[in-house]
Amino acid sequence: MRMVDLIEKKRDGHELTQEEITFIIDGYVKDDIPDYQMSAFSMAVFFRGMTDEESAFLTDAIVHSGETIDLSAIDGIKVDKHSTGGVGDTTTLVLAPLVASVGVPVAKMSGRGLGHTGGTIDKLEAIPGFSVEITNDTFIDLVNRNKVAVIGQTADLTPADKKLYSLRDVTATVNSIPLIASSIMSKKLASGADAIVLDVKTGSGAFMKKLDDAKELARTMVKIGNDLGRSTSAVISDMSQPLGQAIGNALEVKEAILTLKGEGPKDLTDLCLALGSHMVVLAGKAKDDEEAKEMLKGAIKDGSALEHFKLFAKSQHGDPEVIADPDKLPKANFIFDVKAKADGIVSAITADKIGTAAMILGAGRATKTSEIDLAVGLVLNKKIGDHVTKGESLVTIHSNQENVDDCMNRIYESYTISTDEVSAPPLIYDVIKK
Amino acid sequence: MRMVDLIEKKRDGHELTQEEITFIIDGYVKDDIPDYQMSAFSMAVFFRGMTDEESAFLTDAIVHSGETIDLSAIDGIKVDKHSTGGVGDTTTLVLAPLVASVGVPVAKMSGRGLGHTGGTIDKLEAIPGFSVEITNDTFIDLVNRNKVAVIGQTADLTPADKKLYSLRDVTATVNSIPLIASSIMSKKLASGADAIVLDVKTGSGAFMKKLDDAKELARTMVKIGNDLGRSTSAVISDMSQPLGQAIGNALEVKEAILTLKGEGPKDLTDLCLALGSHMVVLAGKAKDDEEAKEMLKGAIKDGSALEHFKLFAKSQHGDPEVIADPDKLPKANFIFDVKAKADGIVSAITADKIGTAAMILGAGRATKTSEIDLAVGLVLNKKIGDHVTKGESLVTIHSNQENVDDCMNRIYESYTISTDEVSAPPLIYDVIKK
Repeated sequence: MRMVDLIEKKRDGHELTQEEITFIIDGYVKDDIPDYQMSAFSMAVFFRGMTDEESAFLTDAIVHSGETIDLSAIDGIKVDKHSTGGVGDTTTLVLAPLVASVGVPVAKMSGRGLGHTGGTIDKLEAIPGFSVEITNDTFIDLVNRNKVAVIGQTADLTPADKKLYSLRDVTATVNSIPLIASSIMSKKLASGADAIVLDVKTGSGAFMKKLDDAKELARTMVKIGNDLGRSTSAVISDMSQPLGQAIGNALEVKEAILTLKGEGPKDLTDLCLALGSHMVVLAGKAKDDEEAKEMLKGAIKDGSALEHFKLFAKSQHGDPEVIADPDKLPKANFIFDVKAKADGIVSAITADKIGTAAMILGAGRATKTSEIDLAVGLVLNKKIGDHVTKGESLVTIHSNQENVDDCMNRIYESYTISTDEVSAPPLIYDVIKK
Repeated sequence: MRMVDLIEKKRDGHELTQEEITFIIDGYVKDDIPDYQMSAFSMAVFFRGMTDEESAFLTDAIVHSGETIDLSAIDGIKVDKHSTGGVGDTTTLVLAPLVASVGVPVAKMSGRGLGHTGGTIDKLEAIPGFSVEITNDTFIDLVNRNKVAVIGQTADLTPADKKLYSLRDVTATVNSIPLIASSIMSKKLASGADAIVLDVKTGSGAFMKKLDDAKELARTMVKIGNDLGRSTSAVISDMSQPLGQAIGNALEVKEAILTLKGEGPKDLTDLCLALGSHMVVLAGKAKDDEEAKEMLKGAIKDGSALEHFKLFAKSQHGDPEVIADPDKLPKANFIFDVKAKADGIVSAITADKIGTAAMILGAGRATKTSEIDLAVGLVLNKKIGDHVTKGESLVTIHSNQENVDDCMNRIYESYTISTDEVSAPPLIYDVIKK
């Protein structure tokens, strides 16, 4: 087999076999196939796409390019949740203790944030003492005991994905649905979960700006997961504005606590209940979404969800007191309000601009080696469809620097205030199951 | 400017500016742009194409990636001829002395053959003593005195083309008309001719199998040449079978001598008259093709064309006696006839298979470092449309080895004998001028 012939085959719109796709991924990881052939192949895939079968073969080849995690020592059906990425997405912080409190095992491998999107580990570290530096044995033991634990990704999972993603990033071949789908799904499959719930974001702040693209990505990933033996479903949710109100690590922990108490923002709460109920169903703990949702609402109402967050934090050396009293979370020195300059209705909030405004305060990393400030961030007081009067606060800035002009300007730029009536966007566009 | 943005721009079907294209070629030659970006870009060009303007900018950037030849010391309008490559293509051997004999200066830089296609230098070296190892000054002096000289390519012309072509060859991006057109035209432009006549081959033995592709390639090259200030025209000629009868170096020299005497194969003669008349017109030596053709026919008839071949050979240390007596050319030790196995009509001759049959005798190079045997080769006694009777010779093999089974089998495989009447294919499909 010669790579040049396989590039030509894909270029001319023919379907590749499992053997051919495995040859490509194996050869690429072993450096037998050079970057310049892989990038030409990726561009051919960009134009020609891949069939569902090809996408599943590709995902499988990437999974087997490195280590895979064995979670079989954990009792029950392990369900993972993955979001395609957004701004102010606090769902993992809420969902992990919430679904664990109804008996669903959550064994989560997480990463740190980069750019305008946050990372779950950073957020959890806003709880004083919280550590993801635990051994694999401790991790498995904690999930068995508490139904929830989070560990930093240490194993060498999907090296083919890392290598291929870096290449796609500099060759304008990121934006290909089969390549995105196989990249995401390979990481989820290698992480060892039995079932996967996907939160595919769409809208101006999401990678998939168009609903049709988000649907196609979701459909492809659900197909790949199920074809490769993992029950998978997807929710397509709105990212035309940031989710919830808080952006920033401690601020999002506080928002998660409020949500677990039933006092969180409606959009965040509703999305957590939707994603959570899929997780509960796939874990075999409820017969349908409705029953699952009632279980989750019950856990919020009777306090067991919040109690589970305390247990989770305490087991990973976090101070459980902050869960009871979020005012003990790290706090910024300065508070500023970004005030509306005129009366009107919020018609748009550019999520990635807001994300960048939070990042420059120190809430996120500009580069992989940037230090982050866990205390700082933004709270959105007004969202799309909300009426505002001149002088009212659109956003509250939590900062450790006194000059926030740049941040404030970016917030003004990201808000559009209209004089026409505007409705809030729908939260969930579609649900895709096997 | 970032290469990844330019790849994306082309990927999304937008037109690149001259500045952007120059940035790409300059960066690639300087190794600032890596192969993996260039191959992704080439694949994007494969799918999106290039406008005529982009193709001209690309050609110009490739021309200026290295040295260019200055032929201004040669009097008159220098006209070059280029063939897109075929089997048994003896046109250059005929055309160089032919058009020179009517006063058109031919300053030709040539290469050696590779694979199943021959090279003009190899063919000329079948004339004992002939040398292309002459200085630039001698070259220019010879063209001024004799109107014709051939030199081996020594200058570092179009390094961007060499680098890019090697990359395209292994990334399935050869087959793109703007990339082919700019590759060919950049070499012609860098070689310094004032005007260019292109012989674009089409048919089973040509790179452009389909007539429409050949037309589009010819149109693109003519546009590039004229846009960049060189009068350019193209003839689209048949390569559904080898041109003329001879394949092999000494055999083709003999065929060229016969053609210059008016005794050559009709197809080779007609194509030389067509290409030659375009050369004469572009050189300003005749007012139209008809007049030019009459001049060339006259030069054949009155013996001046053949005399010019002698002068040309002698001036480059070749033995002029072989021109008068081609039997003095190198001769093979063995002659075999490939005899028809049944009565019928020749309906197809696979040109590249015939070329390979000649190559394995030693007439061509399997690899760049192979030695070639100037004496060996094939003479096609039957061509498409010819009637054959069982036992009649289809092809005569001239070999220096006694066992020619492999060669003979390939010849049988390349000939199709039909029982239905078949006409000879047309020789010239189209002519494309400014």
